[in-house]
Amino acid sequence: MSIALIIPDRKLDDLQQRLALALADTPIEIWPDIRKPDEVEFAVVWKQPHGSLAALPNLKAVQCFGAGVDAILSDPTLPALPIARIVDPGLTQTMVRYLDGVVSHYRLRLDLFSSWQQQALWQPKSPRRIAHICVLGLGELGAAAAAHFAGLGYKVTGWARTAKQFDNMQCYSGAAGLVAAVAQADIVICLLPLTPATESLLDSAFFGQLKAGAIFINVARGAIVDDTALLAALASGQLQAACLDVFRQEPLPPEHPFWQHPAILVTPHVSAVTNVETVVEQIADNYRRSQRGAPLCNPVDLSRGY
Amino acid sequence: MSIALIIPDRKLDDLQQRLALALADTPIEIWPDIRKPDEVEFAVVWKQPHGSLAALPNLKAVQCFGAGVDAILSDPTLPALPIARIVDPGLTQTMVRYLDGVVSHYRLRLDLFSSWQQQALWQPKSPRRIAHICVLGLGELGAAAAAHFAGLGYKVTGWARTAKQFDNMQCYSGAAGLVAAVAQADIVICLLPLTPATESLLDSAFFGQLKAGAIFINVARGAIVDDTALLAALASGQLQAACLDVFRQEPLPPEHPFWQHPAILVTPHVSAVTNVETVVEQIADNYRRSQRGAPLCNPVDLSRGY
Ligand SMILES: NC(=O)c1ccc[n+]([C@@H]2O[C@H](COP(=O)([O-])OP(=O)(O)OC[C@H]3O[C@@H](n4cnc5c(N)ncnc54)[C@H](OP(=O)(O)O)[C@@H]3O)[C@@H](O)[C@H]2O)c1
Ligand SMILES: NC(=O)c1ccc[n+]([C@@H]2O[C@H](COP(=O)([O-])OP(=O)(O)OC[C@H]3O[C@@H](n4cnc5c(N)ncnc54)[C@H](OP(=O)(O)O)[C@@H]3O)[C@@H](O)[C@H]2O)c1
Repeated sequence: MSIALIIPDRKLDDLQQRLALALADTPIEIWPDIRKPDEVEFAVVWKQPHGSLAALPNLKAVQCFGAGVDAILSDPTLPALPIARIVDPGLTQTMVRYLDGVVSHYRLRLDLFSSWQQQALWQPKSPRRIAHICVLGLGELGAAAAAHFAGLGYKVTGWARTAKQFDNMQCYSGAAGLVAAVAQADIVICLLPLTPATESLLDSAFFGQLKAGAIFINVARGAIVDDTALLAALASGQLQAACLDVFRQEPLPPEHPFWQHPAILVTPHVSAVTNVETVVEQIADNYRRSQRGAPLCNPVDLSRGY
Repeated sequence: MSIALIIPDRKLDDLQQRLALALADTPIEIWPDIRKPDEVEFAVVWKQPHGSLAALPNLKAVQCFGAGVDAILSDPTLPALPIARIVDPGLTQTMVRYLDGVVSHYRLRLDLFSSWQQQALWQPKSPRRIAHICVLGLGELGAAAAAHFAGLGYKVTGWARTAKQFDNMQCYSGAAGLVAAVAQADIVICLLPLTPATESLLDSAFFGQLKAGAIFINVARGAIVDDTALLAALASGQLQAACLDVFRQEPLPPEHPFWQHPAILVTPHVSAVTNVETVVEQIADNYRRSQRGAPLCNPVDLSRGY
């Protein structure tokens, strides 16, 4: 038996070496150079080319190399197998620190001061009054972000698929809950997974429900947002600014209007990147589980899509 | 007796009203419309025109409206009177939050991502490795900033005039101590007062002692830094970036090279602005103290200059 790494456009030496160390005598093959496809029983995957998993006839389980499995599930030839994803406290902390920094960026008006600097404009202003933050998606990442901001004294509301109770914040669910969760928020953060239910969910109706002048941060997936609706909300002033780390197409195409928009901060999908060192052990563990027929750790529910 | 507010270029209605409320029947006059100069016994001052205090023959004490008294002391006609300055937990917290946000800005490389955005460049990078922060000046603001970053897990070194001992950080003093304090720091924050001893202290020799590629943040006073040396340190790569909130001349003149420098973030002296609401009580208290001949709260040591 062997393991395949199907992670295009990424140097995999480090992952390969660390996995080999953790799993003494298991061969690790790197796609597209898989010499013995019928020996592969476990695949570590990120944005796999469609069909690449179907070409492995004896595959038993799929390990997503990140937290979001939307790209894996988009493969129409995906074999019906158990899928696991990454849940890593280090990854969660990285995301929370990114969000904390972006919220400070807006609170301190660094967006305005930077643009005024280009015009040599000296215009002192006190910080933006950001009192209320809404987090959409209260899973591993969303719940941690919400708790972080609640701990700093912000009023926090959250929204998830199912009803939840957390300390120091009001949680909502369902379509009506979404309206209530966002209505008063100064900043809305998207940490939903991309699923059939969330694709283009954040559309013009959604932006219309925000507080006028709200700030929107998307660190989940680009396709959850209707780009045209987002641009219209910025144009009307309904949105004051947006920070986007994820996009429908990545890299964001050079001609996309987000790049040159003065009220949009683009970061190139860096908010929380999987750290090989901290996740190798959970991948090795899932390999061993798949070998003995045990349920995977951090499994994905294929019926929900996340 | 009366109080004079000598704070040019600022709306003073709020301060005047709140002080009047705190000090029932004391007349409050606003410079330059001081009808009865010989009745003024207490002055609240920020960047007073030179000579304006000397024109008040019965003045008993001077209350600086901010934390730094350098502008008051620069007046050659300054009467020899007790001077107090503002020390306010709210002001300290505002400064710490500014510094926290700026450190995050650099940690997350928002400086680079913003400039790459203008060129539609998609270049993912993990956060900057910022492990060690040095704080110059360990008074009200510096000690709080140092404790904040130490609490977040950064290695912190500090530098003051006199020897100090604080938890979780190494403190230095004296000229040799300055070299030791900054040598390994990824970020150096200036929170010194401007005095004859600190004027142009941060010169080319200073920048030469920093770790190559360090980041410099000045939230104290512009004249502590030699602007030419700062620009040279950026040009040589000795400094990677600088965030400047304070300048030798404010507003920063439109033709100053800091404005258009790609590695400098200019903010218009906003890091910690005195909040009228929270400081009125200490100003009123100092007025009452001066009336009964008691020592002022938060006194300035004129021999040290801060
Ligand atoms: N930008 C980056 O670098 C980066 C890094 C990591 C992850 N991500 C993205 O972040 C997403 C969230 O990660 P996670 O680990 O927190 O996921 P998770 O643990 O699976 O949590 C997902 C959350 O979204 C909620 N949700 C799902 N579908 C919903 C719907 N239709 N309506 C309302 N709420 C819904 C879930 O509700 P229930 O709790 O009720 O199930 C849950 O609270 C990932 O899917 C990934 O796309 C981005
Ligand atoms: N940008 C803004 O919005 C803003 C707002 C508020 C204040 N500020 C500036 O921040 C400065 C610091 O405020 P603060 O309230 O923290 O002042 P502070 O309490 O008086 O503390 C000053 C610190 O600097 C040290 N120091 C003074 N002279 C020194 C020298 N020659 N060498 C080494 N260390 C020296 C002092 O050392 P010792 O402890 O040994 O005396 C003390 O630790 C103010 O003076 C003001 O200029 C700026």
